[in-house]
Amino acid sequence: MSSTSLSSISADLSRIRLEIRSLQPQVVLWRRSLHQHPELGFREEMTARFIAQKLQEWGIPHQTEVAQTGVVATLEGNRPGRVLAIRADMDALPIHEENDVPYKSQHDGKMHACGHDGHVAIALGTAFYLAQHRDFAGTVKLIFQPAEEGPGGAKPMIEAGVLKNPDVDAIVGLHLWNNLPLGTVGVRTGALMAAVETFHCTIFGKGGHGAIPQQTIDSIVVAAQVVNALQTIVARNLDPIESAVVTVGTFQAGTACNVIADTAHLSGTVRYFNSNYAGYFGRRIEQIIAGVCQSHGAHYELTYQSLYPPVINDGAIADLVRSVAETVIESPLGVVPNCQTMGGEDMSFFLQEIPGCYFFLGSANAEKGLDFPHHHPRFNFDETALGMGVEMFVRCVEQFCR
Amino acid sequence: MSSTSLSSISADLSRIRLEIRSLQPQVVLWRRSLHQHPELGFREEMTARFIAQKLQEWGIPHQTEVAQTGVVATLEGNRPGRVLAIRADMDALPIHEENDVPYKSQHDGKMHACGHDGHVAIALGTAFYLAQHRDFAGTVKLIFQPAEEGPGGAKPMIEAGVLKNPDVDAIVGLHLWNNLPLGTVGVRTGALMAAVETFHCTIFGKGGHGAIPQQTIDSIVVAAQVVNALQTIVARNLDPIESAVVTVGTFQAGTACNVIADTAHLSGTVRYFNSNYAGYFGRRIEQIIAGVCQSHGAHYELTYQSLYPPVINDGAIADLVRSVAETVIESPLGVVPNCQTMGGEDMSFFLQEIPGCYFFLGSANAEKGLDFPHHHPRFNFDETALGMGVEMFVRCVEQFCR
Amino acid sequence: MSSTSLSSISADLSRIRLEIRSLQPQVVLWRRSLHQHPELGFREEMTARFIAQKLQEWGIPHQTEVAQTGVVATLEGNRPGRVLAIRADMDALPIHEENDVPYKSQHDGKMHACGHDGHVAIALGTAFYLAQHRDFAGTVKLIFQPAEEGPGGAKPMIEAGVLKNPDVDAIVGLHLWNNLPLGTVGVRTGALMAAVETFHCTIFGKGGHGAIPQQTIDSIVVAAQVVNALQTIVARNLDPIESAVVTVGTFQAGTACNVIADTAHLSGTVRYFNSNYAGYFGRRIEQIIAGVCQSHGAHYELTYQSLYPPVINDGAIADLVRSVAETVIESPLGVVPNCQTMGGEDMSFFLQEIPGCYFFLGSANAEKGLDFPHHHPRFNFDETALGMGVEMFVRCVEQFCR
Amino acid sequence: MSSTSLSSISADLSRIRLEIRSLQPQVVLWRRSLHQHPELGFREEMTARFIAQKLQEWGIPHQTEVAQTGVVATLEGNRPGRVLAIRADMDALPIHEENDVPYKSQHDGKMHACGHDGHVAIALGTAFYLAQHRDFAGTVKLIFQPAEEGPGGAKPMIEAGVLKNPDVDAIVGLHLWNNLPLGTVGVRTGALMAAVETFHCTIFGKGGHGAIPQQTIDSIVVAAQVVNALQTIVARNLDPIESAVVTVGTFQAGTACNVIADTAHLSGTVRYFNSNYAGYFGRRIEQIIAGVCQSHGAHYELTYQSLYPPVINDGAIADLVRSVAETVIESPLGVVPNCQTMGGEDMSFFLQEIPGCYFFLGSANAEKGLDFPHHHPRFNFDETALGMGVEMFVRCVEQFCR
Repeated sequence: MSSTSLSSISADLSRIRLEIRSLQPQVVLWRRSLHQHPELGFREEMTARFIAQKLQEWGIPHQTEVAQTGVVATLEGNRPGRVLAIRADMDALPIHEENDVPYKSQHDGKMHACGHDGHVAIALGTAFYLAQHRDFAGTVKLIFQPAEEGPGGAKPMIEAGVLKNPDVDAIVGLHLWNNLPLGTVGVRTGALMAAVETFHCTIFGKGGHGAIPQQTIDSIVVAAQVVNALQTIVARNLDPIESAVVTVGTFQAGTACNVIADTAHLSGTVRYFNSNYAGYFGRRIEQIIAGVCQSHGAHYELTYQSLYPPVINDGAIADLVRSVAETVIESPLGVVPNCQTMGGEDMSFFLQEIPGCYFFLGSANAEKGLDFPHHHPRFNFDETALGMGVEMFVRCVEQFCR
Repeated sequence: MSSTSLSSISADLSRIRLEIRSLQPQVVLWRRSLHQHPELGFREEMTARFIAQKLQEWGIPHQTEVAQTGVVATLEGNRPGRVLAIRADMDALPIHEENDVPYKSQHDGKMHACGHDGHVAIALGTAFYLAQHRDFAGTVKLIFQPAEEGPGGAKPMIEAGVLKNPDVDAIVGLHLWNNLPLGTVGVRTGALMAAVETFHCTIFGKGGHGAIPQQTIDSIVVAAQVVNALQTIVARNLDPIESAVVTVGTFQAGTACNVIADTAHLSGTVRYFNSNYAGYFGRRIEQIIAGVCQSHGAHYELTYQSLYPPVINDGAIADLVRSVAETVIESPLGVVPNCQTMGGEDMSFFLQEIPGCYFFLGSANAEKGLDFPHHHPRFNFDETALGMGVEMFVRCVEQFCR
Repeated sequence: MSSTSLSSISADLSRIRLEIRSLQPQVVLWRRSLHQHPELGFREEMTARFIAQKLQEWGIPHQTEVAQTGVVATLEGNRPGRVLAIRADMDALPIHEENDVPYKSQHDGKMHACGHDGHVAIALGTAFYLAQHRDFAGTVKLIFQPAEEGPGGAKPMIEAGVLKNPDVDAIVGLHLWNNLPLGTVGVRTGALMAAVETFHCTIFGKGGHGAIPQQTIDSIVVAAQVVNALQTIVARNLDPIESAVVTVGTFQAGTACNVIADTAHLSGTVRYFNSNYAGYFGRRIEQIIAGVCQSHGAHYELTYQSLYPPVINDGAIADLVRSVAETVIESPLGVVPNCQTMGGEDMSFFLQEIPGCYFFLGSANAEKGLDFPHHHPRFNFDETALGMGVEMFVRCVEQFCR
Repeated sequence: MSSTSLSSISADLSRIRLEIRSLQPQVVLWRRSLHQHPELGFREEMTARFIAQKLQEWGIPHQTEVAQTGVVATLEGNRPGRVLAIRADMDALPIHEENDVPYKSQHDGKMHACGHDGHVAIALGTAFYLAQHRDFAGTVKLIFQPAEEGPGGAKPMIEAGVLKNPDVDAIVGLHLWNNLPLGTVGVRTGALMAAVETFHCTIFGKGGHGAIPQQTIDSIVVAAQVVNALQTIVARNLDPIESAVVTVGTFQAGTACNVIADTAHLSGTVRYFNSNYAGYFGRRIEQIIAGVCQSHGAHYELTYQSLYPPVINDGAIADLVRSVAETVIESPLGVVPNCQTMGGEDMSFFLQEIPGCYFFLGSANAEKGLDFPHHHPRFNFDETALGMGVEMFVRCVEQFCR
């Protein structure tokens, strides 16, 4: 490659970046507007209208009410080519905001405490930019998805056909990430985020007077032994090179100190990266509960749900994102390899269907106090990341659709 | 002993029994009246007025407002002698009666579900009889005690001096007992009922995201190991010839299946017969909690309370009650020896001060459906036991004060 | 009863006691002779010859080789009456004596460390006395039984017919008891000693490299959870007023620190007083092992054996022994009521067949260093107890056969 | 790079491979000779003599008796450059060979069951080749190390100065690996093998009669709770994205089913990849043992040893090895990325000192029955791997020393 072409890249880089920088104030306004009107999963009506209105304004064809409140926009490049989808989730959380900012949530008990307002704003910024720069080969689909926080909007959107017509070749998505500082991108081939499963179990013993244990089956003792035995799944059954978590989050039993509890309620969450373990933890948990109950003559009811599969990035698309990130961040040092979290995401359903890459966009700024964890009532992020997010997506399109 | 004296005993027996039988309808009315107006511990105001009014009517000197709502009556025999106390507890329970009887509780959510209404009626019947039959040597003190179900009225009454002036030599008391059929008396030298202790413990771990256990101290796991380890107190530390119970009645921890619980709350009850174990269980429970917490870096707060000591009957007074019971029941077969229960009673405080005997008066009648357990919303007893209770006390006076 | 008859009793008492005192040195010699030649269960050949030779000498009809090494002698009183059996066990233990006494065991690794040498000597003393004092009504059978320490000689002797022809009406037996001081007798109506059951369990997991747990089933983890869960039998399933012990005495698993153990071996002992629990503990232990194994995919083999039932004394015979003891001890203070131990004894098989009473004869003398526990290599007892034992049995005959 | 230079590489490739292929029969003979004379750690005297004799023959300067039985050879290239060390371990195992091969171990109870015979033969083949082809820049040090299986010869050799004079710039080593098929190479940047730590713990309770638990502290119950609690280290304390194993390999306690065990002995092994956890597991294990012991009044003695740190490969050298492997295997498919095992190796000590790379050379051939696991009495490998090993090392020298 000649030095001529290298300088032309630099020139091009500057141009894109300059244009996106000029977009930044606009993107921030959109994000703040969305922030003031948080909506829970499948109730993102104002949010959807906001998105649709912008797309309308910019003349971008789109479809609304996809999987209830989802929106899908389609942008054609100036020549034929592959189809890349960009996914942004839209929903807020049932958390009461404690930030003291002018754009604070106007809806008590609801808050964009996970940054999805930023995700929508970034996707809108990308749409705006691409609408004016059609010099790419192929098509970009923007998927505004409801209800990521649960019960999950990705699956219904797939069922509604968002990956078809035209068929999407690959998908990218990002999460503003306060576990990484501003100026970094976390990306990884393979499992980035974990499968999420959940269980609720009631152990039925036989209640009775606290002084007459022989007439009872003490559900607290049985459930305590279940909790103990569950520890062996990760400690003994899991391949130590693999990653998994089995957490019992609640243990509720008994009403009085001198009455033996009839029933004990346990609930918990399970996480893992490797899809080979699908189904495994549910079976193992039930086997343990059944065995321990049997040993004491107790009974049980178990509800076990597989919520989200693991988020598995495709190697080629992850490499593409990694190289784009090195350009955007302007330093390979800012790209955090092997970034992984046991958190879950329903982006995983898209990635089960087609190759793609989900990545983390560093958004914390400790100096400005913008480093509270996600889901915290004081969560907020450095909005500088918004422009970087737009640039990430624009450059992904540039790379993928050429 | 000549045959003459034997027949005179029989004659005497008949006379007492006949007179008490004629009293029976009256005692039943008193009981039913009390049953309709149950009052919780230290709120037995109507009950106390009812008692005082009867004593007044019968010209029996008495003192009211002893330890708030207690009443003490004094009956002198026709010659000097020893002082015997008879104790009856007065309080009802916060239980909503489900019996469908004409004399059902008129106070929603309160009920004489442990038979204390009967105890008061029996004591009143005894007072009425003795007031008219002063042919005994010495003095009878009738102690109407509040708040047996908790927090305990015996101790305050002792502190108020009910065992002094004149000094009481011995005390008897009874419990109508649905665990025994009508026509039986359960009595025992030594421990009849258990010491009652109670604990409340909070285990402080460190909460966090269910998928990030390494940043937490899982209070549910710690508390489950505490529950497990507590089993060894009875299984390994207690002399197997002794009796004790350690029950964890409640285990409350966590608010969401995917959040590791910051704290876990345990509460429980401890029972034992042998006073040598006083203090032991509290120390052992704390040692276990402390050790298990230390092993996981958790902390704890423990509140341990000794509520009632064990009910320990004096050998001589128990023998007296046993022989009286054989007369009343008319058959030694009806006297249940070695009767014991891990339930508790604050009669124990009186028995710590002076010799005495507490006994169970069989009151269940399964054929009539009068055999629900104590504290059950449908608890009721066979009122035939009321007359037998009066006869038991009257004959105890006859034997002790002669 | 006139004062005349009372003084004649005293005179009689003195006579018996004086005669037995003169016997004492002889009984001590017999005991010491036996002590030097301890023999294990069903190998008591010298012991049996020693006994038979004495009986022969004294002209007492007897039968040898009953249940291999047992001896049964029959003494007729001078008039017809009831038949009382007196039982003495004969066997020693596989313990190497550490006492430094002239009559120390001459057989390395074997020792009379439980006092059965004394039991035989007492029974011989009783035989000698009764052979010369036939003034009793009925018959006395002396049962010299092998193998009390295991596998048990009582059952085979019963099967050999020792309680028949003539039919035995009641049986007494004693154990020299270093848990009580010399000058006391421990006796009790009902359960005196516990049922003894034993279990051996192998838990089959799947061994493997210590660093590859996922390919194994860790038998140590499974067995540890079994040990934990077994604690709940006594702590939660047993009526707290009853007595029982479940002990895991051995836990053997694994050969190297870095290899996951294929199998774990547990063994233990179970004790209880109440015959209603026969069968219960075996079922419960198996239920726990099965459940815990199932919860981890392990398997097990369990051998559960009921060795001896509880030693249950008859009320009437226990009363007789108690009154005799008060005479022998010369004070009711020396009679320890409600004496109980979780130890076992195959005397229980006799007591299952006919009424009787087994009792403890205090034999410890701390001042003389004669208070090591039974089965200790330095166990020894105060031989003064031997004469008291003879007097106990002689007076039991006097009372029962009159 | 021109097409000319590419074809010259191919030519060169063929030449090296052809020469090494002609060496192969020789290398196999060396290996088989070593296989017949296995020697345990620090007893590798015949082995050292065998090596030294060959080096002598080939005129390669070397030093013997380094760290007892180690040998170090030095080969200079024909021009100055960097220094690369190649490490081969020499010791055998105390295992009795069950293979039926002509070159079977001639020493009962000792066997090259981990392939170190092959490692030595490969290093010798490399020495032979390099001695004749000095066209590399710099120096190659061949380190023949004793006692890898324990107690570890790497550390003593470092202390003896093998990495100095001249200072070694990087080190490579390989393990013939039956977990991978012939024709593959497993390599990884970062942790390839785990740190190995080991513990031995005695828990001191208080022994006693199995029927008298109250006088004892049951060491089996305490140790079982320790085993249980240890499971939480991996299940709750470890970052799930990290890897670790805590295995209790032995649990030995008690001598008789009816005696409560005085002491319980536990031993185990700990593995982990991340050096940040150095010290952590020992502290955590002790904290758990201490806490559980305290909760039951028991005491403990713990010996905790850190044997080997994790094997951490340098990124640059691992890349070099990976690219060499792609040449040797002739296909990138044969290079297994992210290969990891929780097994340990004292190669780690060298890698703590200088950059380097340890890698696995696939040696299993299931069709020929050459796939028994390492340390199995029937372990053997496909000797074709020997030539591949020589080629790997020769090419590493070519790449590193140019």
